[in-house]
Amino acid sequence: MKKYLTEFIGTFFLVFTVGMTVIDPGAGTLAPLAIGSALMIMIYAGGHVSGGHYNPAVTLGVWLRGRCPSSDVGPYIGSQIAGSLVASILTLCLKNDPSVVPIEMNGFHALIAEFVGTFALVYVVLNSATAKGTAGNSFYGLAIGFTVMTMAFAVGGISGGAFNPAVATGMTIMHIARAGDFWIYFLGNFGGGAVAAMVFMLINPEDK
Amino acid sequence: MKKYLTEFIGTFFLVFTVGMTVIDPGAGTLAPLAIGSALMIMIYAGGHVSGGHYNPAVTLGVWLRGRCPSSDVGPYIGSQIAGSLVASILTLCLKNDPSVVPIEMNGFHALIAEFVGTFALVYVVLNSATAKGTAGNSFYGLAIGFTVMTMAFAVGGISGGAFNPAVATGMTIMHIARAGDFWIYFLGNFGGGAVAAMVFMLINPEDK
Amino acid sequence: MKKYLTEFIGTFFLVFTVGMTVIDPGAGTLAPLAIGSALMIMIYAGGHVSGGHYNPAVTLGVWLRGRCPSSDVGPYIGSQIAGSLVASILTLCLKNDPSVVPIEMNGFHALIAEFVGTFALVYVVLNSATAKGTAGNSFYGLAIGFTVMTMAFAVGGISGGAFNPAVATGMTIMHIARAGDFWIYFLGNFGGGAVAAMVFMLINPEDK
Amino acid sequence: MKKYLTEFIGTFFLVFTVGMTVIDPGAGTLAPLAIGSALMIMIYAGGHVSGGHYNPAVTLGVWLRGRCPSSDVGPYIGSQIAGSLVASILTLCLKNDPSVVPIEMNGFHALIAEFVGTFALVYVVLNSATAKGTAGNSFYGLAIGFTVMTMAFAVGGISGGAFNPAVATGMTIMHIARAGDFWIYFLGNFGGGAVAAMVFMLINPEDK
Repeated sequence: MKKYLTEFIGTFFLVFTVGMTVIDPGAGTLAPLAIGSALMIMIYAGGHVSGGHYNPAVTLGVWLRGRCPSSDVGPYIGSQIAGSLVASILTLCLKNDPSVVPIEMNGFHALIAEFVGTFALVYVVLNSATAKGTAGNSFYGLAIGFTVMTMAFAVGGISGGAFNPAVATGMTIMHIARAGDFWIYFLGNFGGGAVAAMVFMLINPEDK
Repeated sequence: MKKYLTEFIGTFFLVFTVGMTVIDPGAGTLAPLAIGSALMIMIYAGGHVSGGHYNPAVTLGVWLRGRCPSSDVGPYIGSQIAGSLVASILTLCLKNDPSVVPIEMNGFHALIAEFVGTFALVYVVLNSATAKGTAGNSFYGLAIGFTVMTMAFAVGGISGGAFNPAVATGMTIMHIARAGDFWIYFLGNFGGGAVAAMVFMLINPEDK
Repeated sequence: MKKYLTEFIGTFFLVFTVGMTVIDPGAGTLAPLAIGSALMIMIYAGGHVSGGHYNPAVTLGVWLRGRCPSSDVGPYIGSQIAGSLVASILTLCLKNDPSVVPIEMNGFHALIAEFVGTFALVYVVLNSATAKGTAGNSFYGLAIGFTVMTMAFAVGGISGGAFNPAVATGMTIMHIARAGDFWIYFLGNFGGGAVAAMVFMLINPEDK
Repeated sequence: MKKYLTEFIGTFFLVFTVGMTVIDPGAGTLAPLAIGSALMIMIYAGGHVSGGHYNPAVTLGVWLRGRCPSSDVGPYIGSQIAGSLVASILTLCLKNDPSVVPIEMNGFHALIAEFVGTFALVYVVLNSATAKGTAGNSFYGLAIGFTVMTMAFAVGGISGGAFNPAVATGMTIMHIARAGDFWIYFLGNFGGGAVAAMVFMLINPEDK
């Protein structure tokens, strides 16, 4: 139960920061720094309790790599979606800007962008937070949070830069993304996460 | 005594950075980075002496969690307020801009913003700097400082982003916030800190 | 083989971030933060597998310092160039902006800039990631990644700020740099890396 | 000798970054991030060899605290000034902008700004890099480098934000600061450093 509450809180702050810094007036060009840092701080705070996923695609990747019990997968994703819903509603209460226009995207480009960004995220998560070769380090939150920042700077203009189906759910509720584009996040994020888990196992064959 | 001096110094630099980067001409959109970093560096410098609270709401949360002796609570808060007063006066000497206009705020929205931001801050403090599960790490200052940065990017436009009654005191003296809005910081910050301490104990039941 | 795949992936994300944040519309003045962070996250993710070079000049420096087997030098550089090629092609697919104008440079100034920047990078790599005196630290990725960020802020306007022949290859393919200027990167990067390795050995005489 | 070379290299890159990011066209409002990061990376690279001072005021503070042999004080300061000279000349070669106008300053305000900023810097150096209570950490470079960043955001507009007589020397040569204002840096930096050393000894009485 405490793990699920931790996932709820972490995803809440991640999605809340996305909404508050992206919807105008927000943090402008610095939004990716705020969003990546929101993930970083919540990983450093909650990682020792739940692993600090805050992202269904990360939960999928960690489960494929054998570091998340199957019985936790459903409740983790449920807690993440719940945190995203509450954050989205709170953001709309604080900042109900009727002029928000959802991102226009080229579906194919956006799918590649979300796939590549989520691959990077899950690849960094598995290597920096679950690998034997990096055990005991103090950098995992910085590495993971700043992956989201980097990828948001790189492809935010193409896909909105969710790399996370729970964030994509929040973006849809907050009118930052179009409901009709949700499949892009769904496919790109779970696909990128699954492929990253396979690559992790390929480059860490002795690390079961 | 050395603990109180450390709290004085750390809060001085935090409030001094707030005033100097927010009052025009300051650091513009980068002010949250400077302010979060001011907290980070003072935590890394003074944490080993006083715990590096620099914030009455943090002192409340750490006391509720059982890591601050009751006899220190009053002197800590007194030292923090004193540091804030001196920093505010110095800032006004260096930058007496009569055109500073206090933030206009919607009281209810600002109360939520300060509650949510201070919750995040005290939640990150307790988990990264007092929990058994993260003992011995090198990231606590980065995590705590960047929580203030992230929350300031997220809700700075709504409440000014103090998350700290000592900072709110300084903001009032420096005319960044209105005296009539001080109750928002008082309620939001102590409320958020207290709830964060309860949540910490809920998710770390074995960690007394 | 797993080392070469790791070098491929890391260089891919480094060059992809360069292209996506530098070609308009990109990350604007924040591009160096994104690029330095791309290197940081990939070092934290892949360092325990391959050493996290992602740069032929770094491979040269690490080899001169005796921490890279001669048999790995060729495959490492090949993997880095391959990652750069794939990243460049993907960037051109996502962002084919025919109006990109390659950087104009003063050859002599640019050569100095690339030499100085690559010297800094390889000097930081060898000291923070291969020296006995810093063994077991958690900061190597931050130090190395932010060296590229710092040097890109400092001399990006003079040479484009590659400090890496694989990145320079990608910049040439993506029309950010002129093919006729490639010698500048080749000479400056390998030269700076080699001199940094010598200086490292001079200041760490007992560290073989 | 290897310690002096390390001090030369670190101060060279610090002053080079100051010149290249402050003289137009430079890094604009992000210059403090670049400059603080330059210090951070050089501390992480050279700290294990020389302690990573790169600043005569830091050398004074570390000597007062008893962590720098008296016989090193002169050569350290000489190496730092030499690094600054070479960096300034190189910057002028790469970027000879005849229109650079030195900062106008109110002498009394600037003296306070330099005193306060250098106090913060040496206070953070002594506590994060020489105290028993923080031994073995990985954050010292981040803490020290970002102190310069924070203080430059806070008071850069008032004094130029040197906090370092070697940097002030470079700024004077590069026409960023007026020769007639050098006494401000001299007094403010050595004064702030000396007072910080005394405060460190006051709050760490058992740490000889």
